[in-house]
Amino acid sequence: MINVAVLGYGTVGSGVVEVIETNKKDIERKIGADIEVKYILDLRDFPGDPYEAKVVHDYKTIVNDPDMNVICETMGGLEPAFTFTKEALSKGISVCTSNKELVAAHGPELIRLAQSNKCNYMFEASVGGGIPIIRPMNSALTAEHIDFVMGILNGTTNYILTRMDEDGADFADALKEAQDLGYAEKDPTADVEGFDISRKIAILSSLVCGHYVNYEDIYTEGITKISAEDLKYAHAMNKAVKFLALSRETHEGFFAMVAPFMVDREHPLYMVRDAFNAVFIHGNTLDNTMYYGRGAGKLPTASAVVADVVDCARHLGKCITILWDDERVELTDANKYRCPYFVRVPADKADAAKSAFKIDKVIDAGIASEFAFVTGEIDNTEYEASAAKVGDVINRIRLI
Amino acid sequence: MINVAVLGYGTVGSGVVEVIETNKKDIERKIGADIEVKYILDLRDFPGDPYEAKVVHDYKTIVNDPDMNVICETMGGLEPAFTFTKEALSKGISVCTSNKELVAAHGPELIRLAQSNKCNYMFEASVGGGIPIIRPMNSALTAEHIDFVMGILNGTTNYILTRMDEDGADFADALKEAQDLGYAEKDPTADVEGFDISRKIAILSSLVCGHYVNYEDIYTEGITKISAEDLKYAHAMNKAVKFLALSRETHEGFFAMVAPFMVDREHPLYMVRDAFNAVFIHGNTLDNTMYYGRGAGKLPTASAVVADVVDCARHLGKCITILWDDERVELTDANKYRCPYFVRVPADKADAAKSAFKIDKVIDAGIASEFAFVTGEIDNTEYEASAAKVGDVINRIRLI
Repeated sequence: MINVAVLGYGTVGSGVVEVIETNKKDIERKIGADIEVKYILDLRDFPGDPYEAKVVHDYKTIVNDPDMNVICETMGGLEPAFTFTKEALSKGISVCTSNKELVAAHGPELIRLAQSNKCNYMFEASVGGGIPIIRPMNSALTAEHIDFVMGILNGTTNYILTRMDEDGADFADALKEAQDLGYAEKDPTADVEGFDISRKIAILSSLVCGHYVNYEDIYTEGITKISAEDLKYAHAMNKAVKFLALSRETHEGFFAMVAPFMVDREHPLYMVRDAFNAVFIHGNTLDNTMYYGRGAGKLPTASAVVADVVDCARHLGKCITILWDDERVELTDANKYRCPYFVRVPADKADAAKSAFKIDKVIDAGIASEFAFVTGEIDNTEYEASAAKVGDVINRIRLI
Repeated sequence: MINVAVLGYGTVGSGVVEVIETNKKDIERKIGADIEVKYILDLRDFPGDPYEAKVVHDYKTIVNDPDMNVICETMGGLEPAFTFTKEALSKGISVCTSNKELVAAHGPELIRLAQSNKCNYMFEASVGGGIPIIRPMNSALTAEHIDFVMGILNGTTNYILTRMDEDGADFADALKEAQDLGYAEKDPTADVEGFDISRKIAILSSLVCGHYVNYEDIYTEGITKISAEDLKYAHAMNKAVKFLALSRETHEGFFAMVAPFMVDREHPLYMVRDAFNAVFIHGNTLDNTMYYGRGAGKLPTASAVVADVVDCARHLGKCITILWDDERVELTDANKYRCPYFVRVPADKADAAKSAFKIDKVIDAGIASEFAFVTGEIDNTEYEASAAKVGDVINRIRLI
């Protein structure tokens, strides 16, 4: 019997209980043992809930139960999740989490603590929701030297950009629609400014290099400046605007960035629409691979947590290899990242733009009051210098 | 030290040696031990080859070496691969293979033999080349009840269909181009008739249900009848023709099929072009996920074999869970699979077609001599009955 406890009976936590109950037979076949949700920790009571009797308010009940095998931490936030996780791992109880804040902040320390107590700290659900991406990186792409990771890692913002792309909606209207549907929170800052994504690409980058990439070191630019006009130009170029996280190993060092990019129709990420996410990985002998699926949502995220539970149950008393130490990686300067830029200026600045930028292609989307173009490959320092000469730029978006 | 032997120094086998040598540092970091290719088994000598000194002609040298840990079987075909694999596993030496014929024919028996000798039989490279798909199915999608798998599982035929789609080439010309580029073999039957794909979907289907799906039981239809005209109609419908393998669990039982299908531009599989492959999986709580990458080629396939080697090296003396027994699955009748059909008849049969079929939409691709349409959902028995009434059908392709 595998005894499971769920910390936090919110969206993901209740999803974990639902996935275990719905797929009990499949899961038990895969573990080779019975599984039971023994406790649900929450401050609230849930009268009338079918699992009401499993709800406890004191974490000690769970962590002091000698039969406890795996704890699912679906509370989010740093505390008390951090303290609870450390207590469990110290006692040899494996912890599976969807909590990207905690993983991004204390991943290496918690992995080391798990290893020294012959249990596991697993976090498949912290990046890409239901998409298996952590496990493929740790246990499938092991013959590769991975030099490039690029992802659409936030369902809310991808939904917003898809509405803008397909319906011609402006940012504010698309955000409102996402909020009405429950995709976006009342305060959407963490999503639309890229703070959520920066934690996720920090985790993926850390797994690529085996060291600690701090999300606070990552250059992050939000999508609030993207307008319906930008999408018109994107259409004229057979491109779409996607909110991407990048992580790249170069001769100069390790680089990471979160920003909106224009993506060509031929690129596999182009077709990732609505609340779907995808992670695109390049390896030196494997070439390109991509992993696609639901990047958020109650059941897909819960399914990833429960897949971690299965892995822990199959490895009781053994450590699953995760290479991630706390040597902090010094990221290279994001200003030096070179790519073509799409730039819009007022029509009367066309001549100034032509002399300030090396223009590769002029883009016509039928907006007479503007002059828009794509530059050759430049870095951000060069872009800023040229933009200063023009004096008035309406918007600029990088191209991938 | 992990000692590896490679059986067969052909395309994949030499790729395995190249991947291990190229990524030695990364691989050793992931294993936590040194790795060496100790032997290469081949009937030929390779004078001047950098690994010439490792070549042996007698399998006994390898299988009787007490220090041997993992054997990579990249010979292909049933014999002597089957005998060699059994000998290795019987001695507790793990075997990693790219040999889909052998896995499709004897997978359950070899897995059982490995389990009873505390070693592993791994076959990531047998399906989808470099795409991690076997490992995600076995160890990541473990909380799911998977009810639908659909894949583009052959690089050669996807390349041919891409050329037909993008260049308007006819089948024979696209095949010739694929042969000139080395993608297609001189005798392309196994690829274009779907025999290669049927083995791959048999393996995936088996892993979904845990029992034995025999590839010979799978309804398989090739792509030789697809013409440049079919692609013109596909364009008119915003679709592409893809050579798909399907596996679906229904109320009536388990179903599998290999056939060309028309796929809509909105579907993630639409953008899988050239020699790339992808596997699309639906789970009951995870919804849709997709895995994309190079489905063939020396280094990508070799990378998958070496990822298996890493897994075996991490699990010396322990068995990795693979649920696949030899209870043979009775597949449901492919004639009962319901979907819309795209149908082309000569223009003078338009009236006959209109009375024989329930037509959903007439398709105009500017071919005056023909009448083409899409039916409502029908099964193949219904299709055949209607087609017989018309008497003359130029071609028909299913829609997904």
